[in-house]
Amino acid sequence: MPDPSTSAADPLPSWNDGPAKQEILAFIARVTHEGSPDFLPLAERIAVYDNDGTLWPENPMPFQAAFAIDELKRHIHTEPHLASEPMVQAALAGDLGKLLQGEHFDGLMQVLALTHAGMTIDAFRDAVETWLASAKHPRYARPYHQLTYQPMQELLRHLQANGFKNFIVSGGGADFMRVWVERVYGIPPEQVVGSTARTTFELRDSGPVLTKTVDHLFVNDNEGKPVGIHQFIGRRPTVCCGNSDGDHAMLQYTTINNPRPSFGLIVHHTDSEREYAYDAKTKSTGKLVEALKEAPRRGWLIVDMKQDWKVVFQPE
Amino acid sequence: MPDPSTSAADPLPSWNDGPAKQEILAFIARVTHEGSPDFLPLAERIAVYDNDGTLWPENPMPFQAAFAIDELKRHIHTEPHLASEPMVQAALAGDLGKLLQGEHFDGLMQVLALTHAGMTIDAFRDAVETWLASAKHPRYARPYHQLTYQPMQELLRHLQANGFKNFIVSGGGADFMRVWVERVYGIPPEQVVGSTARTTFELRDSGPVLTKTVDHLFVNDNEGKPVGIHQFIGRRPTVCCGNSDGDHAMLQYTTINNPRPSFGLIVHHTDSEREYAYDAKTKSTGKLVEALKEAPRRGWLIVDMKQDWKVVFQPE
Repeated sequence: MPDPSTSAADPLPSWNDGPAKQEILAFIARVTHEGSPDFLPLAERIAVYDNDGTLWPENPMPFQAAFAIDELKRHIHTEPHLASEPMVQAALAGDLGKLLQGEHFDGLMQVLALTHAGMTIDAFRDAVETWLASAKHPRYARPYHQLTYQPMQELLRHLQANGFKNFIVSGGGADFMRVWVERVYGIPPEQVVGSTARTTFELRDSGPVLTKTVDHLFVNDNEGKPVGIHQFIGRRPTVCCGNSDGDHAMLQYTTINNPRPSFGLIVHHTDSEREYAYDAKTKSTGKLVEALKEAPRRGWLIVDMKQDWKVVFQPE
Repeated sequence: MPDPSTSAADPLPSWNDGPAKQEILAFIARVTHEGSPDFLPLAERIAVYDNDGTLWPENPMPFQAAFAIDELKRHIHTEPHLASEPMVQAALAGDLGKLLQGEHFDGLMQVLALTHAGMTIDAFRDAVETWLASAKHPRYARPYHQLTYQPMQELLRHLQANGFKNFIVSGGGADFMRVWVERVYGIPPEQVVGSTARTTFELRDSGPVLTKTVDHLFVNDNEGKPVGIHQFIGRRPTVCCGNSDGDHAMLQYTTINNPRPSFGLIVHHTDSEREYAYDAKTKSTGKLVEALKEAPRRGWLIVDMKQDWKVVFQPE
């Protein structure tokens, strides 16, 4: 247990005082207090976080979709044959409904494949960096990676300070996220579980080169999240933060019949003034989030963004 | 740089004094000395190790093959229909030539699939634990996981003490290795990159269950190793230890045109008295290891087991 005399008085200053904040602090104190029956050994302090809608917004579209559309606009000049693809037309026309339909954003996946397959990972990283440095969110007029939720930043840093190893477990592309997660969240690339496809390896005159393909696409969403957690991390988490049905299975995997004490948290988007008010819907069915309905029964904490957060975004 | 007054006088006591040991110690000192032009920031201290033939033996067969054959013998009583499979017959007859032929041990993979697909990961873990507790190596008459190379144990612990994050990057199954790597090498499951297939997730009355399948098999060998390193770790290693052509591509990926200082090491099996004397051959072609031939040109250290190691195995 951290010594209160040396740690900051309040590790979660952007959270309003209330039951949500108290519940989080009580859990962390309980599992880090040596001698407590709920003490979690360091090795078992594994925290997983969804990204879109949990650590940063997912409106008006997932930020990686904004990147893909911007990339497409950049590519279309040199590769005009792409323009005949229906999903490319939807993307260029800003038809998000079409682009984000399907259980796994099928149209978006196709656009990503068309624009990124064949790129080396170095070229892809450069493209993400260039985009982050220039693109701005249409509503907040700030670079996308400066729009993380300050209360969640505080939570993940407080968990880290208490010995938890933080992992992003997101439907977003691993290659996309790994470019910036370390400087934005303090989470190293090897602690990012995301959607992936295989690369190919070759030794060129210039050195070793890995090239992106769309083969063996793994979509790290819904039931894919516990599958990805097992494949990449290899043990059950004890803390899981999400916001949508894409996170439902990993909330279940983390908390149901876990022999260790565990904590589930759902960010509920209730604040139309500062952010967006919506119940994240299952992509394929449009149903209201099952995870929200199941939360009381499972003891998952529902964080009410409007009520529980003093501040939404990180300071400029 | 570690303070010599507080660290053990010799971090590699099982290595004979000589050029190999000196080269290892000099590299670590050079990249951890603050102010040195070769200083490696902590985040870039990523070390990858092959397992079979690098950290423990791979004779008379890869240890996981011994496990698979023992498992098969256990299963064959309750599932006699398996006996009609040619590869099962080869395994039961001890026909290693047939079982280990093919670029990726195709026969062995088939046996693994027949015996393990459909098992839950908990049941699989229990099977590995049971095997480790009972099976013994035919030559050394010790449990397999007590046959790690003591000099390599010292090397990986010395690198860890100097801020390196150690990753196993092996053709072995991730599920197989993760059962014991933490207690045997001090390496947590999330730092194991191995061969994998996807699991399926379901919520049963008893709780969440992950079940092994053979779908989307990823064989983490040869060119698959840099591919796996990118997929799981997401950055280039700076230290790479291997012993066979299965490690050739990751040696290249680690060291060729790496903007950071890097170190490649090949364990050369030269000691027929204490271990086995062989040049690991490319599985598909039977060629002598290309990696050994390329080593002088690349500056990879060839460790001569007979000459460089004072002791081979960890103490009983």
